[in-house]
Amino acid sequence: SRPRDLGVQLGVMAPGPLNAITDVAGVRVGHTTLIEGDSIRTGVTAILPHGEDLYQQKVPAAIYLGNGYGKLAGYSQVRELGELETPIVLTNTLSVPTAMSALVTACLRDNPDVQSVNAVVGETNDGYLNDIRGRHVTEADVLAALQNAADGPVPEGNVGAGTGTSCFGWKGGIGTTSRRLPESLGDYTVGVLVQTNFGGVLQIGGVPVGPLLGQYYFRDELESHADGSCMIVVATDAPLGPRNLERLAKRAMLGLARTGGIASNGSGDYVIAFSTAPENRIRTDGGRTRTVTEMSNGAVSPLFLAAIEATEEAIINSLFAAEAMTGRDGHHRDALPVEKVLEMLKK
Amino acid sequence: SRPRDLGVQLGVMAPGPLNAITDVAGVRVGHTTLIEGDSIRTGVTAILPHGEDLYQQKVPAAIYLGNGYGKLAGYSQVRELGELETPIVLTNTLSVPTAMSALVTACLRDNPDVQSVNAVVGETNDGYLNDIRGRHVTEADVLAALQNAADGPVPEGNVGAGTGTSCFGWKGGIGTTSRRLPESLGDYTVGVLVQTNFGGVLQIGGVPVGPLLGQYYFRDELESHADGSCMIVVATDAPLGPRNLERLAKRAMLGLARTGGIASNGSGDYVIAFSTAPENRIRTDGGRTRTVTEMSNGAVSPLFLAAIEATEEAIINSLFAAEAMTGRDGHHRDALPVEKVLEMLKK
Amino acid sequence: SRPRDLGVQLGVMAPGPLNAITDVAGVRVGHTTLIEGDSIRTGVTAILPHGEDLYQQKVPAAIYLGNGYGKLAGYSQVRELGELETPIVLTNTLSVPTAMSALVTACLRDNPDVQSVNAVVGETNDGYLNDIRGRHVTEADVLAALQNAADGPVPEGNVGAGTGTSCFGWKGGIGTTSRRLPESLGDYTVGVLVQTNFGGVLQIGGVPVGPLLGQYYFRDELESHADGSCMIVVATDAPLGPRNLERLAKRAMLGLARTGGIASNGSGDYVIAFSTAPENRIRTDGGRTRTVTEMSNGAVSPLFLAAIEATEEAIINSLFAAEAMTGRDGHHRDALPVEKVLEMLKK
Amino acid sequence: SRPRDLGVQLGVMAPGPLNAITDVAGVRVGHTTLIEGDSIRTGVTAILPHGEDLYQQKVPAAIYLGNGYGKLAGYSQVRELGELETPIVLTNTLSVPTAMSALVTACLRDNPDVQSVNAVVGETNDGYLNDIRGRHVTEADVLAALQNAADGPVPEGNVGAGTGTSCFGWKGGIGTTSRRLPESLGDYTVGVLVQTNFGGVLQIGGVPVGPLLGQYYFRDELESHADGSCMIVVATDAPLGPRNLERLAKRAMLGLARTGGIASNGSGDYVIAFSTAPENRIRTDGGRTRTVTEMSNGAVSPLFLAAIEATEEAIINSLFAAEAMTGRDGHHRDALPVEKVLEMLKK
Repeated sequence: SRPRDLGVQLGVMAPGPLNAITDVAGVRVGHTTLIEGDSIRTGVTAILPHGEDLYQQKVPAAIYLGNGYGKLAGYSQVRELGELETPIVLTNTLSVPTAMSALVTACLRDNPDVQSVNAVVGETNDGYLNDIRGRHVTEADVLAALQNAADGPVPEGNVGAGTGTSCFGWKGGIGTTSRRLPESLGDYTVGVLVQTNFGGVLQIGGVPVGPLLGQYYFRDELESHADGSCMIVVATDAPLGPRNLERLAKRAMLGLARTGGIASNGSGDYVIAFSTAPENRIRTDGGRTRTVTEMSNGAVSPLFLAAIEATEEAIINSLFAAEAMTGRDGHHRDALPVEKVLEMLKK
Repeated sequence: SRPRDLGVQLGVMAPGPLNAITDVAGVRVGHTTLIEGDSIRTGVTAILPHGEDLYQQKVPAAIYLGNGYGKLAGYSQVRELGELETPIVLTNTLSVPTAMSALVTACLRDNPDVQSVNAVVGETNDGYLNDIRGRHVTEADVLAALQNAADGPVPEGNVGAGTGTSCFGWKGGIGTTSRRLPESLGDYTVGVLVQTNFGGVLQIGGVPVGPLLGQYYFRDELESHADGSCMIVVATDAPLGPRNLERLAKRAMLGLARTGGIASNGSGDYVIAFSTAPENRIRTDGGRTRTVTEMSNGAVSPLFLAAIEATEEAIINSLFAAEAMTGRDGHHRDALPVEKVLEMLKK
Repeated sequence: SRPRDLGVQLGVMAPGPLNAITDVAGVRVGHTTLIEGDSIRTGVTAILPHGEDLYQQKVPAAIYLGNGYGKLAGYSQVRELGELETPIVLTNTLSVPTAMSALVTACLRDNPDVQSVNAVVGETNDGYLNDIRGRHVTEADVLAALQNAADGPVPEGNVGAGTGTSCFGWKGGIGTTSRRLPESLGDYTVGVLVQTNFGGVLQIGGVPVGPLLGQYYFRDELESHADGSCMIVVATDAPLGPRNLERLAKRAMLGLARTGGIASNGSGDYVIAFSTAPENRIRTDGGRTRTVTEMSNGAVSPLFLAAIEATEEAIINSLFAAEAMTGRDGHHRDALPVEKVLEMLKK
Repeated sequence: SRPRDLGVQLGVMAPGPLNAITDVAGVRVGHTTLIEGDSIRTGVTAILPHGEDLYQQKVPAAIYLGNGYGKLAGYSQVRELGELETPIVLTNTLSVPTAMSALVTACLRDNPDVQSVNAVVGETNDGYLNDIRGRHVTEADVLAALQNAADGPVPEGNVGAGTGTSCFGWKGGIGTTSRRLPESLGDYTVGVLVQTNFGGVLQIGGVPVGPLLGQYYFRDELESHADGSCMIVVATDAPLGPRNLERLAKRAMLGLARTGGIASNGSGDYVIAFSTAPENRIRTDGGRTRTVTEMSNGAVSPLFLAAIEATEEAIINSLFAAEAMTGRDGHHRDALPVEKVLEMLKK
C-alpha cells in the first residue's frame, strides 16, 4: 500500500485520481527492470510527454540543476531552445551513453531526414547494489522501456531506473504522485516521478524518522549516507513556457528538502520539467511565429506548491514501495521499516 | 526565550555559543529600528564580515537567487568577481537606493581615491505594516546601523530590517543562528541571519503549525499569505571560494523549505554567503597572483547541512521573537502564539 | 556627419530610416547633459519602450551580463519575470542610487497603489573626465531625461550618459543605429543605443585604426586603455520572449568584439534587450493566462546578425560624434581623428 | 603554409613557438581521421591537459555556452565542481554517445575502483559531407585518438573531428594557435584549438572576404550558410580557477565574432577552458583543504586579449589548412581560395 492509503497525508493539496505523473493527460511511463544473477540490479525508466513523435511535436521544457554533480545528458540545448525533442530516459550513471544512443536510434528510425537530436537522459549511481562497471543496460533495454510506456498506474519501488538505488540508507527506487489544482485556480495537474538515490536526515511529515531509527547523515560525525543523487521529472498541463517551467523545477528541490535531503556535494540532483499543454507544442514544420498560451507570473504559485508537495510525497512513496535487496558483492539494503514508521507517524 | 531554550531542537548539529551569526569570528551586526507614529514600521540591518575596511580587504562571496522577484543591489559584480567590497545592508524594498547611497558615502569617506564601489543591499517589502511609499529610511539611518554594528548576541524579532515584516501570516522579523562542525570535520562555524517576510504552510520541526492554527497559503484556495520575501545571509569561517559559497547559499533555500516556505512567485528570496577565512581576504594592493586555501569539494557536505539547519532555525527564531504589531492604516499582525505552538510540539 | 554618411558602411544589412533605436516604433530617448565648471561632465540618458506607463504595460525583456563588473540595477527581477516595468536609465557609476530613486519617484507618482517597483539603471564610469565622487546627478536630472524623451533622431556623442565617457582612449559617448529586416524575413527592426566607455584595440570595418594610430590596449605591454564599460540597449519590434531576447542581447557583445573591444576585467558590459511587440505587453490587470505571439527559434538568426551589426556601428557612431573634452583635474580626451580614419578606410 | 607564415598577422600579441595549443606545456592532441568510401568523412580529436591520469589529477576547468544548440556532454558537473576529469574529445553530433562510452571505458580500465566519471565530449554536425546518420565512429577510433595524442605541432584542416566540417560556406576543419604573454605580465601561454563548422559573414583581419567573394550569410536574404557550430578549447598555464576560466572561455566567442561568426540559432558554440598550472591540480586523494595559486581578477585582462586573438587566428588557420572535399551524396565544399584572399589582404 502507498503511504496515502495508509493514512500518511503529506501536504494540503489534493492528488489526482492515480496520484501519479500519468494524471497529467498524455504522459506515459515505461520501465525495463534488470535483475540478473548476483550483481545486476539496474534498469531504465522512460517518461513520454505525449503519444506522438517528440521530434515532430516538441514540448516546452526546462532542466534545473539542483546540484550538478551528475552526468545528465541534453542540458544545454534544452536551456537554449526551451524545448524537449526526445522522451526522457532515466538509468544508471555509466549507462547514460547507451541510453543516449538508443534515443538517437529511435529518432533516426522514425525521422528519415534528421541529422541531429538532443537526447535527454538522467541518471543516479546504483553502484552499491549493482555491478555498474559492467554496464549491463543495452540499447534494446532502453528501446523496450520506450516501447512499453503506457498511461495508467505506474509501478513504484524496485523497478526500472530505481531497481538498484538507495535512499537515506534504505532501499530507494521509483516514486510518483500528482497534485490537482481546484477549478478556481485553473484545474491544472502537476505530476512528479522520482528516482531516489540520495541521503540526508529522513523526515516524513515532519517526524524525524531517520534520527529516531538511528540512521542519518552526520551520525557519529563520520558516516555518510548523504551522497547519491535524485532525478526528478515534473509534468504539467498548465501552459508554462520554459522560464516558468524552470521556476517550477526549482521548487521540486524544496520538496526534496522537506524529506530531509541536503543535496550533498556528491549528489547529482536534477529536475526536468515540461508542459503538455497541447496548444503550445512546437511543431517542426511551424512558421516564423506561433501563437502560444502563457500562464501569467502572478498565477504560478499554486503550481509551485503542487510541485513541492508532489515531490515530497513521491520520494516517500519510493521508500514505502521499495523492498529489501541484496546485490553486488553481497551488499544489502533494508527496506524502510514501514510498520515502525507508521507507528511513529501516529503519535 | 528562544525556541532552543524552550526545548525546540531543530536539526542534528550543535549550534555555536551564541547560536547567532556572530559566532563566526569577526562578524558584526547592527540595527536601526524605525517605529514612529502610526505608520512608520521599518528599519535597517547591517552585517559586516570583519572589522576592517571591506573595500581594502574584500572577502570571497556569492549571491544565490532563490527567487529573483526582488530589488537586491550588487548581484552582478559579486557573481563576476566573487567578492564582497561593502557591508551587507538589509532594509525595505523602496529604500534600497538610499541604502546604496549610504554605502557609497561610507566607502568614499574612508577611501579618498575610490571612484567605483559595489553596494550590496537586500530588501523585503514591509508595506503591509509600514508606510513604505513614504521612504522613511535616511542615509543617516543606514550609517547608524553600520556604526553600531557589534559582535556578541544579536537582537531578533521586530528590530532593524525586520521591524515591519510578516511571515506565514504572523509577525516576522530578524532571526539568527549558527552551527558548529566538530573538530573531526574542521571545527568550522556557519552562521545565518534572516529577514523573514514570506509565506507558505508553516511547519516547525515537522509539526504542521500553520494548518493546525488554520492559517496557511492555499486555505480556501484563495487566500494568499505566500508572497513576500526572505533575505538570508550566510557567514562561515570555512575557506570556501565563490563557487562553493554559491553552493552553500543554495542550501539555505532548503532550510527555508523545511519551514514550509514555497518561494512563491512574488517572493524575492536571496541568499548572500561569504567566507571570513582570514587568509583568503582579497587585498586591493595584492599582486598578480595570491595563495588561497580552498576547501575540497568532497569536504563541503557538512557545511551544507549546517546551512540548512541554521536557516530553518533562524526563521523559526524570527517568529518566536517577533511581537504583535499594528501599523499603517491600522493593519495588524499577531505574533505567533508561542504557547500554543509549544504545546503542539510537545505531542 | 555620421560614419555611414561619410561612406563607412559596416555590415551587410540595411538600417532603418533614422539609423537609430527610435526606428523601432514607439521607442523614445531622452538626455540630460551636465557640463558645469571645470569638472562636472556627466549626465543621464533614458530609453522608453513605449509612451504608456511601463508599470501598467510591461514589456518582455532580458539583461545579458557581458562582463558583470558593474553596478547595473534591476537584474534579478528582469531575469526571474522576463519583463521590464520602468524605463531604462543610463548614468554614471556612482549616480545609480539617485537614478533608481528617481524611477521609483516617477512610478509612485503615476501609480498610487504601487509598493514595489524594479528600477533598471545602467552605468559606466566617467570618472576620468567627471568629478564622479561629487555625485552631481540629481533626481530632477533623471526626471528631466524621462520627461524630454522623444522619438525621432537621437543626439549622439557628448550627450546624456555619454557626456564624460572615454572609448579606446578617445572621447566616447552615446551612439545609436538600427537594422531593418526585409519583408521576406518579417520586416522587423532592431535598434541599438550604446554608452561607450571601454577599451581594447580599435578596428573599424576591419582596419586596425588603434594600432595604426598608436593607441591601443597592450601597447608597450603596460598601458591600459582597456578598462571602462559599455552599456548596450537593444530594442526590437519582433515578438521575442525573454529567452530569445537574452540570446539577442548576447549577440550585441559580438558586435562590440568587432570594434576591438575585449570585455576586460574592469569593464562592466551589460546588454538590455526588450521587445515592443504590442500584442505581447504584459498588463498588470491581465488574467491567469494570456495569448502571446512568439518568434520561432528557427527564425531568429537574421535578428542576431542585425544586433551584431547595429551594435558595431553604434559604437563607431559614438566615436565619430564625440568631441574632444577637458574635464576634472585638467584631464583631456581627444576626439577620434575622423579625417585620418577616413583616409585609412579609403585604402 | 599557415596564414601567419604567409604574412597574415592577426592581433597584436605574439604567438608561442608552435603557434598551437601544445605551446601550453603538457597539452597533447590526438586525431583519428575517417575518410572511407563515398560518404564517410568524419573523425575524432582528443585534447589532454597533461600526461597523467586525469581522473586522479583533475584540472580546474569551465565550459561556456556560447550558444547551447548542441549536444556537448559533461557540462553540469564541470560547472558544479569546476574541474575536468577526462580528456576532452571532439567528434560529430551523432557520435557523442560513442565518444562518451570510450572515455568511460578508458577511465574504468585505468581506475579499477571508479564507478562514476564525467566524460566531456564536444561535437559539430558534419552531416553535409559525412553520412552522419551512419554513426561510423567507433569506440576504438576514440581510444586511438587518445592513444596517439602527442605534444608538438598539431595537424590542421581536414583531420580528426574537422574532417568533414564546413565553415562560412567553405571547407572548415581543425585550427590551432597560441599567444604568449611577455614576462612583465607573467609569461603565461594561452593556446586554442577549434573545430570550425559555422557560418556568418567571413572577414579576415577586417577585410570582408565573404562579401568580396560573394559568399555569406544573408546574401539574397535567403541563403543560409550560418548554421553549424564551433567547438573551441582554450588551454592556459596561468593559474586561473573555474570562475576566471569561465570568463576566459567567454572571450573566445569575441574572437569568433571577429571572423564574422554570428552564433546563429542553429550553431552549437561551446568553449571549454582549463588551466594546467601544476600546483592547482586536484588530486583524488587530497585532504579537506588544499592550497592553490589564484590569479588576481585585476591581472586577467591580457589573458582575455590572448584568448580573443588566438581564437580568431585558429579559425582562420582552419580555413587556410582545409582542402576541398567531396562526400555524401556528392556534396562538395571548396577550400577557401587562399591566393585570392591573400591578394585581398595585401591591399
